Amino acid sequence: MEFKSKIRTIQWVDTYSRMVNQTLFPYEFKYVDIKDGESMYRAIKDMIVRGAPAIGIAGAHGVVLYAQELQSLPKEEFIPKLLEKADYMASSRPTAVNLMWAVKKQKDIILNSKSDVKGIVEELKQNAIKLENEDIEINKRIGDFGAQVVPKGATILTHCNAGALATVGYGTALGVVRSAFANDPTIQVFADETRPRQQGARITTLELTMDGIPTTLITDGMCSYFMKKGMIDMVVVGADRIAANGDSANKIGTYTVAIAAKYHNIPFYIAAPLSTIDISIKSGDEIPIEERSHDEVTHINGKAICADGVNIINPGFDVTPHELITGIITEKGILKPDYEKSILNCFEKLSL
Amino acid sequence: MEFKSKIRTIQWVDTYSRMVNQTLFPYEFKYVDIKDGESMYRAIKDMIVRGAPAIGIAGAHGVVLYAQELQSLPKEEFIPKLLEKADYMASSRPTAVNLMWAVKKQKDIILNSKSDVKGIVEELKQNAIKLENEDIEINKRIGDFGAQVVPKGATILTHCNAGALATVGYGTALGVVRSAFANDPTIQVFADETRPRQQGARITTLELTMDGIPTTLITDGMCSYFMKKGMIDMVVVGADRIAANGDSANKIGTYTVAIAAKYHNIPFYIAAPLSTIDISIKSGDEIPIEERSHDEVTHINGKAICADGVNIINPGFDVTPHELITGIITEKGILKPDYEKSILNCFEKLSL
Repeated sequence: MEFKSKIRTIQWVDTYSRMVNQTLFPYEFKYVDIKDGESMYRAIKDMIVRGAPAIGIAGAHGVVLYAQELQSLPKEEFIPKLLEKADYMASSRPTAVNLMWAVKKQKDIILNSKSDVKGIVEELKQNAIKLENEDIEINKRIGDFGAQVVPKGATILTHCNAGALATVGYGTALGVVRSAFANDPTIQVFADETRPRQQGARITTLELTMDGIPTTLITDGMCSYFMKKGMIDMVVVGADRIAANGDSANKIGTYTVAIAAKYHNIPFYIAAPLSTIDISIKSGDEIPIEERSHDEVTHINGKAICADGVNIINPGFDVTPHELITGIITEKGILKPDYEKSILNCFEKLSL
Repeated sequence: MEFKSKIRTIQWVDTYSRMVNQTLFPYEFKYVDIKDGESMYRAIKDMIVRGAPAIGIAGAHGVVLYAQELQSLPKEEFIPKLLEKADYMASSRPTAVNLMWAVKKQKDIILNSKSDVKGIVEELKQNAIKLENEDIEINKRIGDFGAQVVPKGATILTHCNAGALATVGYGTALGVVRSAFANDPTIQVFADETRPRQQGARITTLELTMDGIPTTLITDGMCSYFMKKGMIDMVVVGADRIAANGDSANKIGTYTVAIAAKYHNIPFYIAAPLSTIDISIKSGDEIPIEERSHDEVTHINGKAICADGVNIINPGFDVTPHELITGIITEKGILKPDYEKSILNCFEKLSL
């Protein structure tokens, strides 16, 4: 049975990008139309759109928006200007590789197209739409592969939001949940709040309750308590970048959950499209970790939660080392350790 | 050198109990006077006063308040009524054993005193004041023993608030910090936010900045990130109840930190007075875990942080198993594994 989700996070409409404004969660579910490149840069940076696959698509849309703005230029000026704008778009957030990957797909068109400027703009738009559709298809395949390792009646713990709202519309980690739930309505989810930005509380609880999947919200420190009680059967989270050895960067706090899962012998899975794997880097040590604003830690809903004069360090991500990962669920199947080999093998097959 | 703290959390004044209202942190530092037994029951239950040693003292004060209310009764009515009120006071919170311990000290007086009613009231008051003074002395001894295992220039991670504001005035875990800092001003603290009630953010950052000790606030999920980076040298937390085998109940999330510390080979210490040890129970499995209001998870500063329709489970505490604990710092020295033996040995010596 196929799961029908109610959620479409981002979509190209005619000449602009329409997306759900995720900064309003859980209070409002509202669309915003992004109509120029600079606004898209801000939308990604300020997390109006977030989630590695979704910001990949947003980046691809952003390049189309810039192309539209520059299309009155002659081709010899249009190409270098647009390439510069594409690089700028790719720099809006540093950790998720999907953004660079999607922008690179657009840059390949800019660099290689034989068309005139109007033709290139059209090709970029068609490619963005193709990436959107592929993202949903890829997510469904991830979901279906993942569902095979979900035990009947399982409680699945997840961290942050790797859901429909982190992608175009089905989800990676929550895609696994959706595919499993479609055939087993006794599946349920425990969602980590995911401080500082509370994506688990604000976004995961919202999208799962919208889709009718039973969800329990817990604070980040509680995971081990429920693991010890035997109330968690598996952990599935997304990833923002995966190194060639399987080390996986994901939202800050993921690494802590992975250690707790290992301690309790609970399977810990990453669910992510192959575009998240960056085979150019050997290990997680090379993944740049975004430092975010101190306000995210010191304030909630605009109100201070701590004393003045306290120091803050706010890494947006951490890296879960491959030895804590049971499997990486991709659209081509579940990669298993030794990841260096299974990842290389998978990429070699694809290039055949 | 002795550390002078600015903070006095709770104090008997004349005919009533004066305490810092901890529900107002970090916005206000304000005293409230509790003048009757029922108000003390509510103050403990609603966490106007919190922290295992502080609620022990509050409980002792509460018995005095009830004794004052009942003092017009003849002794044969006064005794059973007051014992009943004492049991009611002890039931205000279930996990911390210090509350039961302090109330029992008062009950011993009620049961054994040869004085008349007025005399018993006076004895209860003097005993409450004695327990207050002892608490500070005990904390200082815990601090001094603990300081011996703090490396020079260490960064100490703590969870929740086991500070001056959890005790009468010096702190257990933060007593260790204060004693270490007095002789080494390069010591610093990383404070876990401690969701859901954010005692780390609201209380620990407040009391440490008031006392001039450098403090970095982190979210609960971040601990492993900083441990892996080598930025945490040790963990010191308090406890609400310790079983005869060393298993230690403390604020929810502590167990997750302990697992992370073990994974990174970082020493993990409990700092607590001997009154926290409940030798009547064999292991942590027997410690009752308080279930608290769902609002603590779903709302922050009165505002919802998640979707409607989500389930909540809100355990106030978790149990860190003894095998994750490097040592238990008490006023009689640092207990080491095998805890069953070292705890028994310590209690046997005391009863000699």
